[in-house]
Amino acid sequence: MAVYTEVPDEALAAFVASYGIGEITSCKGIAEGVENSNYLLTTTGGNYILTLYEKRVVPEDLPFFLGLMEHLAARHLACPTPVRDTGGEMLKSLAGRPAAIVTFLKGVSIRRPQVHHCAALGTALAELHLKSEGFAIRRRNALSLDGWRELATRLGTDAAKVSPGLGTLIADEIAYLGAHWPASLPEGVIHADLFPNNVFFLGDRLSGLIDFYFACNDLLAYDLAVCINAWCFEPDFSFNITKAKAMLRRYGESRPLSGPEAEALPILCRGAALRFLLTRAYDWLHTREDALVKRLDPSEYIRKLRFHQGASGPESYGADSRS
Amino acid sequence: MAVYTEVPDEALAAFVASYGIGEITSCKGIAEGVENSNYLLTTTGGNYILTLYEKRVVPEDLPFFLGLMEHLAARHLACPTPVRDTGGEMLKSLAGRPAAIVTFLKGVSIRRPQVHHCAALGTALAELHLKSEGFAIRRRNALSLDGWRELATRLGTDAAKVSPGLGTLIADEIAYLGAHWPASLPEGVIHADLFPNNVFFLGDRLSGLIDFYFACNDLLAYDLAVCINAWCFEPDFSFNITKAKAMLRRYGESRPLSGPEAEALPILCRGAALRFLLTRAYDWLHTREDALVKRLDPSEYIRKLRFHQGASGPESYGADSRS
Repeated sequence: MAVYTEVPDEALAAFVASYGIGEITSCKGIAEGVENSNYLLTTTGGNYILTLYEKRVVPEDLPFFLGLMEHLAARHLACPTPVRDTGGEMLKSLAGRPAAIVTFLKGVSIRRPQVHHCAALGTALAELHLKSEGFAIRRRNALSLDGWRELATRLGTDAAKVSPGLGTLIADEIAYLGAHWPASLPEGVIHADLFPNNVFFLGDRLSGLIDFYFACNDLLAYDLAVCINAWCFEPDFSFNITKAKAMLRRYGESRPLSGPEAEALPILCRGAALRFLLTRAYDWLHTREDALVKRLDPSEYIRKLRFHQGASGPESYGADSRS
Repeated sequence: MAVYTEVPDEALAAFVASYGIGEITSCKGIAEGVENSNYLLTTTGGNYILTLYEKRVVPEDLPFFLGLMEHLAARHLACPTPVRDTGGEMLKSLAGRPAAIVTFLKGVSIRRPQVHHCAALGTALAELHLKSEGFAIRRRNALSLDGWRELATRLGTDAAKVSPGLGTLIADEIAYLGAHWPASLPEGVIHADLFPNNVFFLGDRLSGLIDFYFACNDLLAYDLAVCINAWCFEPDFSFNITKAKAMLRRYGESRPLSGPEAEALPILCRGAALRFLLTRAYDWLHTREDALVKRLDPSEYIRKLRFHQGASGPESYGADSRS
């Protein structure tokens, strides 16, 4: 959650006017997205989301993120569509920040996903992977092996402040992943952060995906590993294989996993768990005391990482290697 | 800003269903209201605000607050109207908290009010005072003299941590106000917290008032004193008499101030400045480090209090004693 930037009255009015989307009838800061300032903007023309990109987002990445959303929306993936202003621009500036307006997506995120939610997510994730084909801009994953090594270095001995022995756990895991990370699985555009808060449902129907600000080019199956971590553990951190099986089966119906992709699931899940463990540990130590950001407990991902370290193969996730 | 309480998926769905206002299409935590958890709830029937009352609100006061909004809305004051569920209840429970749904009010709050905004506020404040007549429930102002004394005692020597000499300033001011506070001015229901963030505008038109959770019975002119403090100082803390004059003139056109009310403006403004100085100083010292609440700088109200201490009479606020 975050609303960092306060926008001057006249600047907001002039900004919205440049889009030709009607008069402002409401503009409320919303608790959505950890990285940016988001406003639910209502005009006489409809509902929109106004985003001001804060310091954690690299401005040079914004054409990738916004272009990807436009690319996907044009192919009828349900996601926010960047609105272009009357001059054709979709990336603009407001209150000294890069800013954009995107269409409003109906739906609510599910705090406690059930098996059918995980199944629906599998379909949507495959659809995202297939429909992003042909998107021209590339963005490397800044939070893969090299990024993990850099974060581990920056954490340094402070890791022990988060949890005793965490520094050793991280170092050993990075060494293992560096030695065993798959080199030649199918690549494409991945969402890379498809947690339940970034997936909307209307009743039981998945109504769309949001928050593409970690999207990048990487192994497609790694996106599944992120989702397994984010969707298939219970509040007591036990792994729910029924949820993973449903997600993987429905994913495979649209985009069948290759044998090597299925075999790589345990190590990909280890990498995804480490990725969130590292960023949460870093944020835990470095979030300003007065920040309007809810810090997320890193220890959850220690538990998840240990589960994946014990996984024997794709069958640990309910993956059907024949699919 | 605050979203404290996370509402379970099924509990939210059942809660909204009990109102018969359609299916949920969106529910986003919004950065509105410091005291409570607020969600912008969209259903197939329209837009609403869902509020969960957090610990700072006394549950016994809620029938006053909700009843007042219903009373005012029935008299066509533009303010949120509590929605009653299919059983006729407007105060209910959700996720272990008292909860209510109110209608959505169009408009945006103005960060930097201009003179015409202050003028419009004057009219709206008089309308609030007139239309609240006949409201049956009473609530004493917990943040008047007795409450200030209690807060000052709780601050104790910690006041100096906020600003050197603050303890003495507060003690002297409470002694002065205790000796000179007006005893017999017209009373009624006051909003008591009508800051710019609680007043909505659509273009230049004032579209409504929100956040009645400090409303109470007190001197009507004290509400003007709160608004003078909240609306008529510039960002550099200089007093803008043109704004105060416009506010007072337009208020007086609907509800003329009596001579004693106008004469009391300086002391009422001193009281209002002290009230916000005290609560801000207390919050400054006691807000949890990880709280999702933006702490407000108390020193602003030291500056404002000193201005009012130097005011010579109603003319210092541009008040026309003949009106």
